[in-house]
Amino acid sequence: MKLTPEGCQQRREHLLKNASADLIVIADPYHILYLCGYWVTPHHIGSRGTPFLLIDTSSGKTTLLTHNFAPVGDNHYADSVEKWHWYDGRTISAPPLYSARFDALESLLSKYTGRTIGIEKGTLPHGLSLQKTVDVTPILLEHRRKKYPDERSMIEFALEAVTAGHTAGRGAIQAGNSELQVYQAIHDASSNQAGVPIHLLGDFVSGKRVTGIGGDPTDRVLQPEDVMILDIFPVIGGYRADFTATVAVSDAVDPIYHEIDTALHHAISAGEGQLRAGNSSKSVYDAVKSALGEFGLADNFPHHAGHGLGLGHPEAPYFVENSTDTLAEGDIVTLEPGVYSDTFGARIEHNYLITDDGFTRLTHHNTSIFG
Amino acid sequence: MKLTPEGCQQRREHLLKNASADLIVIADPYHILYLCGYWVTPHHIGSRGTPFLLIDTSSGKTTLLTHNFAPVGDNHYADSVEKWHWYDGRTISAPPLYSARFDALESLLSKYTGRTIGIEKGTLPHGLSLQKTVDVTPILLEHRRKKYPDERSMIEFALEAVTAGHTAGRGAIQAGNSELQVYQAIHDASSNQAGVPIHLLGDFVSGKRVTGIGGDPTDRVLQPEDVMILDIFPVIGGYRADFTATVAVSDAVDPIYHEIDTALHHAISAGEGQLRAGNSSKSVYDAVKSALGEFGLADNFPHHAGHGLGLGHPEAPYFVENSTDTLAEGDIVTLEPGVYSDTFGARIEHNYLITDDGFTRLTHHNTSIFG
Repeated sequence: MKLTPEGCQQRREHLLKNASADLIVIADPYHILYLCGYWVTPHHIGSRGTPFLLIDTSSGKTTLLTHNFAPVGDNHYADSVEKWHWYDGRTISAPPLYSARFDALESLLSKYTGRTIGIEKGTLPHGLSLQKTVDVTPILLEHRRKKYPDERSMIEFALEAVTAGHTAGRGAIQAGNSELQVYQAIHDASSNQAGVPIHLLGDFVSGKRVTGIGGDPTDRVLQPEDVMILDIFPVIGGYRADFTATVAVSDAVDPIYHEIDTALHHAISAGEGQLRAGNSSKSVYDAVKSALGEFGLADNFPHHAGHGLGLGHPEAPYFVENSTDTLAEGDIVTLEPGVYSDTFGARIEHNYLITDDGFTRLTHHNTSIFG
Repeated sequence: MKLTPEGCQQRREHLLKNASADLIVIADPYHILYLCGYWVTPHHIGSRGTPFLLIDTSSGKTTLLTHNFAPVGDNHYADSVEKWHWYDGRTISAPPLYSARFDALESLLSKYTGRTIGIEKGTLPHGLSLQKTVDVTPILLEHRRKKYPDERSMIEFALEAVTAGHTAGRGAIQAGNSELQVYQAIHDASSNQAGVPIHLLGDFVSGKRVTGIGGDPTDRVLQPEDVMILDIFPVIGGYRADFTATVAVSDAVDPIYHEIDTALHHAISAGEGQLRAGNSSKSVYDAVKSALGEFGLADNFPHHAGHGLGLGHPEAPYFVENSTDTLAEGDIVTLEPGVYSDTFGARIEHNYLITDDGFTRLTHHNTSIFG
């Protein structure tokens, strides 16, 4: 599963059309993925000498600049690849990683002397000598909201993997199993479905910890009277999904969870009623909160009603009270009503693609608390 | 498992003693961990708005500067915490993440106007306005080689977790299981031992792919005549371990693996013979290569004989032919002889702490190809 050359080219064209620069230097690994399909997992060998992507704005030609130990094969769509020498498993260069990295970049920049370089103010390293720069970050951040078909496929691939994981996780939610065992059932089934190891983050909490919204799984053993919150956010190939269910270990849970189950599903339906290009993010938040209010649970709803997702988590649009965002065709968002008190905690969450006349729901997992 | 206040203070004192600056601004998340114990997993919520650590060199006082959605509790040893407003799950700030981040840092820097700021040239973002700077990266990179007791504990914690994983992985190496199933057995047993989910990277290859040194696990199913290489590098709390074994699926493997098994163990012993503070890294490489040469396998040994590890992978010292490093007390290193041809591939690897009179081996897994 990877981004397509066409998708990357269209995203570069949008950037070129909107940036007033002679050359654009991309340093954010997520934006290098977005614009030329190249992704290096954090923690990978040498990943801290992250690459640069150079885009000449007159020719549109792209150059991927990375170190000589980086895994560069056919996993990118750059027109050319340049490498600086750091380490290749056989010989090591004396200076620290960043020196050769800067020298290589400055060498490629030398023919643009006196011209305007488009940069990302927040991620381009400080040690470079650049005179005329313009920050292209706002263009990228704004445009990232609209998901292209290849990005949607990346997110759907992650969703499909983790939907298998969710089913396995539900099966593992039994008295006597630990939170970690449930997490591992999700991890393993998701990896099997994806065919590759996955990075699986999220909230995997039971017992008293459900009242605190989330956290990593522990070796705590599930009890018959528990519910467990599974909020799963995998990162596969740099793209994310994010969905939630809350599951009763047995019928011995507090009976209030029957009402909560009804309330959360009512609230997510109310939110869905506002999902449409042109609607305000605030209207989504208000609909979810108001629906919970019908059950006397408005004050038990402490967080956002959902948010955008894709390369980041969370990202725009934000479904919060003070949001000024407007939903747009191509947004991929979550809705996640949740309610918490000193004695209970539960949340459900789906993912959606926003369309001109509404939405397409992308998630198909079971969100019922009672299986 | 975390770094200690004493370890962080000693590392800061070393930096302060060697840096000619009035204030030091640390931007590399790994160095923030190193100096004040604060670690955020990559991919974590909002992790792309990474924090800064400020160290006033006259008072030694530290300030951790991060955003208001970051998980900051008692998981750091900074004297104070300052936050910029980005997002808290309830309200969102209008400008992109980096603006508020820069504004907050520049505000804290304002009282140092005209004075010298110690920076990391490769990781401090470009968009900051700083006049007099000095790069402290070389001090940190050099000092990182010597592992403090708390760092050694972090690495040993990771090793202990993944040793349990290794044992489980060996058990799963059976004809009919897939590479992914072996990976998952390792992942699950390691997580169980650690008590937390772990990031598990490495090489998990079988069949023809062993000739190519490494790669991610796939759904390929193990055959009786296979060996499988398990090169496991977990990242737990920001610190790494890294050890390897090659395991025959059954006695049906090519008989040459008996000789390879002997050669690899002979080679790692030869490398161990050179592990001592004051010895050159090149002597370690030469000893390993020469030992393989006794079996006619010197030309089948294409990579380093080992390397340092800790916060990065690989890091100094490098056991390669052109290395100019000298081993020092406190280095934590791997030895990893491996041999490959068109028809075979195998590697073993241990981790060691370098001492004045030799080494302490930190790994205790089974490296025999035949179990």
